Amino acid sequence: MTDKLDALRAIAKKMSLDAIAIVPGANFQRIFGADFHQNERPLMVLVPVDGTPSAIVPNLELGSFAAIDFDGEVYDWKDQTGYQSAFDAMFEKTSIQSIGVEGQSMRVFVHHAIAKSKPSLAIADAQREIASLRLVKSDQEIAALRKAISVSENALAKTIDAVKVGMTEKDIESSLIQNLYGSGADDLSFSPIVACDSNSAKPHASARDDVPVKPGDALLIDFGAKVDGLCADITRTFFIQHCDDRSRAIYETVLQANLAGIASVVPGATAADIDDATTRVLEASAYADRIHHKTGHGLGREVHEDPYIMRGNDEKLQAGMVFTIEPGLYQLDDFGVRIEDDILVTETGAESLTSFDKQLTLIA
Amino acid sequence: MTDKLDALRAIAKKMSLDAIAIVPGANFQRIFGADFHQNERPLMVLVPVDGTPSAIVPNLELGSFAAIDFDGEVYDWKDQTGYQSAFDAMFEKTSIQSIGVEGQSMRVFVHHAIAKSKPSLAIADAQREIASLRLVKSDQEIAALRKAISVSENALAKTIDAVKVGMTEKDIESSLIQNLYGSGADDLSFSPIVACDSNSAKPHASARDDVPVKPGDALLIDFGAKVDGLCADITRTFFIQHCDDRSRAIYETVLQANLAGIASVVPGATAADIDDATTRVLEASAYADRIHHKTGHGLGREVHEDPYIMRGNDEKLQAGMVFTIEPGLYQLDDFGVRIEDDILVTETGAESLTSFDKQLTLIA
Repeated sequence: MTDKLDALRAIAKKMSLDAIAIVPGANFQRIFGADFHQNERPLMVLVPVDGTPSAIVPNLELGSFAAIDFDGEVYDWKDQTGYQSAFDAMFEKTSIQSIGVEGQSMRVFVHHAIAKSKPSLAIADAQREIASLRLVKSDQEIAALRKAISVSENALAKTIDAVKVGMTEKDIESSLIQNLYGSGADDLSFSPIVACDSNSAKPHASARDDVPVKPGDALLIDFGAKVDGLCADITRTFFIQHCDDRSRAIYETVLQANLAGIASVVPGATAADIDDATTRVLEASAYADRIHHKTGHGLGREVHEDPYIMRGNDEKLQAGMVFTIEPGLYQLDDFGVRIEDDILVTETGAESLTSFDKQLTLIA
Repeated sequence: MTDKLDALRAIAKKMSLDAIAIVPGANFQRIFGADFHQNERPLMVLVPVDGTPSAIVPNLELGSFAAIDFDGEVYDWKDQTGYQSAFDAMFEKTSIQSIGVEGQSMRVFVHHAIAKSKPSLAIADAQREIASLRLVKSDQEIAALRKAISVSENALAKTIDAVKVGMTEKDIESSLIQNLYGSGADDLSFSPIVACDSNSAKPHASARDDVPVKPGDALLIDFGAKVDGLCADITRTFFIQHCDDRSRAIYETVLQANLAGIASVVPGATAADIDDATTRVLEASAYADRIHHKTGHGLGREVHEDPYIMRGNDEKLQAGMVFTIEPGLYQLDDFGVRIEDDILVTETGAESLTSFDKQLTLIA
């Protein structure tokens, strides 16, 4: 515990800030081994470089909060009186002049409550630095990821076995989700994407209840189970019954890009190097105009986290990092293909944690 | 469409602001009939009181964004170059000096991107005013809520029929979730609470995989299906095989509070009046020290939204509002009871959209 808070203090020092504030979410989970809802009731832990940590806790969460290993002052507040007085009390007691916050997790009303209590306080976005504490996964986290991926792959196998021409995207999605929970998911990493035909070209399509899959369709499934707090994220693109030569060529291009990306992973390479290796294959193909996104993203307690596998990210890969390699080619009035694996950086190279077959597969 | 943006313009005028900014989420859904992911890629629509609306859109979402009815300037940005330049371009083109934002939805990194583009801009929290556009539900929304509640109640009935002594909280949760999707849920309103024994006293307990339910336990189930974008939210507390007199007395107190709350709902009453009617029953009982939270919250596209049914909220109830009435009594080293219904305000009183039996029920 204490060492975990020390890591936050070290970030504050490095950024010349007086404190770090943490709200519920992935960082909170990793540090405290527990989580709280982010809703209209603010909960926040403040860790100053010097002095005692303190926390703002909704009164009805005091019981759960007492169960975590937190040694500091607690300012609780009740629905009836509101939370501002707890922020006021917290900031009245401290002389800090600046704090770092998680810009992707903290919401503006919390930022405003802090600023209202102490208008002179400088509030910096320390998202990247705080999240970097989660870059290298613990053994326990890697074990949970393996479990989440295994649950996901079992659910996918069951789901595609049952796909029939005439089922809608929504039918397939519902079956996938039931199979995920039936296979042992604690939660979904995110709302799955089940998209056929031109919908497969939309990176975040919603499953339609009026569009049945038909022979020749691409069927893109992007999904993942969450197990013990860790998120799987896998994409496979299938074809229904048959696949024409052009679609096959596009699929093979994406597959080669995926393989080239995985082959390029070694400790010491940068995130940009992996993106380069992957994107080079896509760009050299006849389908370069179908490139629409970067190669991948880190994966852990959040389904999108550092390291982002993209141009310009010079972050060096280290053993224990986990990220997706998910090249894709899309054309909005045509279809999309994406093949996404979850990659663990090892001491000597890479291990693909996903093992689901990625050769072009006809189903239904 | 245009009228919906007019409603935002009216809010800006009323708050003496020059514009309103909207990010993906419940308000976005209601206005545009579509939604986008809130992730590390910012998407934001800016609606000035005068002049043309504009939007910041991740390049890979351009296809989906083009499908919504938006008549304004679009600033897209790519992962490779980042989003700041899109914010800069947007704010360079406008002369607004102040904006209202959704404080509970917008995250700090977006707030910072705006402030970086235009340091002199005043950024106000217009959460409550923007969300108030969703206070009175449309007929379509009420129909979706009825469906979400019916799906939820079917799933609950199936789940408790199968509860056996020895099943863990986690087993019951997994079965509930599969039943929800099997019954037609598009999504979960939130991660369900399935809590027995002392865990039932924690308002946001996590299901344990090592705690089986045993005779005499309270089993609290708080859950809901999301259908067509609308959220059900229901709690029932059961007892396993038998229930002692004291537990029964506590249960009956909560039930009487629930009924008193529902009976007090008439258009024109305030949210605080409903809280009073409910809380009065709890406070008059021998268990007043077990009160830990307000009476309820609005329910719609978000599972927690206005109107909050709590002391101090003088918001007048109008026909078409929907909220929960969910009194509870909890003691951390003992157990908790909560009974939660979803209530629609009608022209003459209230309709409970939930109809699941709430007499004390022994199961397993």
